[in-house]
Amino acid sequence: MDLKVSVIGAGGLGTAIAQLISVNADSVYLYARRKEVVDEIAKTRHNTEYYPNLKLAENIIPVNDFNHVKSCDIVFLCVPSSGIRSPLKELSKFICKDCILVSTAKGIEYPSLKTMSEIVAEYFDRFPVILSGPNFASEIALSLFTVANIASDDPKHLDLVKKVLTTDEFKVKLNKDVIGTECCGVIKNINAIAYGICEGMNLNDNARYAVLTKGFNETKDLIEALGGKRDTVNDYCGFGDVVLTSTSGESRNHTLGMLYGQRIVVDEKASGIIFEGKNSIMAIKALCDETSVDSAIVDFVYDIIVESIPPKIAFKKLWDKMEC
Amino acid sequence: MDLKVSVIGAGGLGTAIAQLISVNADSVYLYARRKEVVDEIAKTRHNTEYYPNLKLAENIIPVNDFNHVKSCDIVFLCVPSSGIRSPLKELSKFICKDCILVSTAKGIEYPSLKTMSEIVAEYFDRFPVILSGPNFASEIALSLFTVANIASDDPKHLDLVKKVLTTDEFKVKLNKDVIGTECCGVIKNINAIAYGICEGMNLNDNARYAVLTKGFNETKDLIEALGGKRDTVNDYCGFGDVVLTSTSGESRNHTLGMLYGQRIVVDEKASGIIFEGKNSIMAIKALCDETSVDSAIVDFVYDIIVESIPPKIAFKKLWDKMEC
Repeated sequence: MDLKVSVIGAGGLGTAIAQLISVNADSVYLYARRKEVVDEIAKTRHNTEYYPNLKLAENIIPVNDFNHVKSCDIVFLCVPSSGIRSPLKELSKFICKDCILVSTAKGIEYPSLKTMSEIVAEYFDRFPVILSGPNFASEIALSLFTVANIASDDPKHLDLVKKVLTTDEFKVKLNKDVIGTECCGVIKNINAIAYGICEGMNLNDNARYAVLTKGFNETKDLIEALGGKRDTVNDYCGFGDVVLTSTSGESRNHTLGMLYGQRIVVDEKASGIIFEGKNSIMAIKALCDETSVDSAIVDFVYDIIVESIPPKIAFKKLWDKMEC
Repeated sequence: MDLKVSVIGAGGLGTAIAQLISVNADSVYLYARRKEVVDEIAKTRHNTEYYPNLKLAENIIPVNDFNHVKSCDIVFLCVPSSGIRSPLKELSKFICKDCILVSTAKGIEYPSLKTMSEIVAEYFDRFPVILSGPNFASEIALSLFTVANIASDDPKHLDLVKKVLTTDEFKVKLNKDVIGTECCGVIKNINAIAYGICEGMNLNDNARYAVLTKGFNETKDLIEALGGKRDTVNDYCGFGDVVLTSTSGESRNHTLGMLYGQRIVVDEKASGIIFEGKNSIMAIKALCDETSVDSAIVDFVYDIIVESIPPKIAFKKLWDKMEC
């Protein structure tokens, strides 16, 4: 294939994607912000902070600058949504005009209400391909069975990104709805928090799955109002991701919801963890207001996280809307 | 309200529904086939086989014949789909012409390929209201939070059944798509078996949720081909029920799938348990063939359960279709 690919961000997802595409790409430049991560990978072939037992492929080249980006055909952006502007600004000096960008971050900037692809387009003269699905990074890193959606309105971009990602275990389904695919990834975090709150409140199964159903349908309303397609919410990036993220104990947003449901306050600064869903709730609530979409689930999460309303009171309000 | 209601079948669901509607109905006649169940409830107010700790409401009257059905406004049919013809035949001699029937059984008769409502219509001059949702009976019995769909094309029937079911905890959402609502309840068992097989095979989360997503979308195709509405699959009776049944350890179909995934053969006769999903797979496969719907998930379950193909080989075939 003779492809050169950069992966920006050597966290859980970046490292997993580098390992995945090392099968199909000629060279994979894995950019880490911290010099010690680059040194460790170069010396030991391990990124112990994320995958202590995973030996990284030989054609993964850890780097600490963006010089190699110039020669790359594809660049995967694997940095959290909240800190994306600074690397994008720097990257824009190095990237060539034909290079395809792939966005994996799930978030909407507040108060600008811009999606990640809109922010990417600010720095480059193109939109990125969106990669999204029911995808725990740790499973991708281990070459376990996974399906993801990629979305773009450029068939050539879809074709090349699909080629570099596809293996016997990793399947890629194409989608043309960039906005819908991207927004599924953001709104699912709100649904996962809502489900987690219900679990933290020790609510029964029938109640939790009713709440998840309501959130799924309201996601369709919101995505349609934002210019995406309702049907995208049925796809791996929608249904698959929201159900995985909500019901699995591995998701941080689900855990965050559980803590709110139990009225336990997290010290995020001390934890050093970014809860993408919490950052998104202000933005999603603003988007609902802007598009006149009435979402009982968004209100439920907003009431508890932002307005500090006790979960039981917020749930009562939600429950009275379940028949709509 | 001064309503008289009969519940036919004093199993887990029948007993739970009797307890639920005892709040709104004047008298609830709970029919049990076995005389000893009737005697136990009359004497102790308990149905210990299903709910050893639940005291049944005073206005629940256990009965062993259909005489009281004559005076009832609503009759809930809570017998398993596989044994429904015999009580229906007997019931038809007693039921008055204005009485509303409510069907809770999930199944399609094989080889006739008739839905439960079509079978009901054979014995009476009307279609039943369909009750379906992410509803564990044990939680309904305990008055825990629950939402269900009811479906009928008769608004008056919907109105009265909603009134008798609704409490502060139990919410009812109306739906006009009888076929779609009914078939969601049948096809979800196939999806739960598929998910269970994947779990039994010890497949990873990304794979299992991808399979669930595929099944959800194929359910839409099949329901549309059968004359139902795709959108019904988004509702509590669709999304909610399939996700609950698939991911919860409480579902028998999920358990059955797990056993097949581990290649453990169940002695159904000795277990004395009816696996609704297993009875349905022949029927669903025949419906797919009849309507020319290509369902990789139905084939997966059919291959393993009916054709005795090893799960790993069947999964390989399924996985190659995940990008469609």
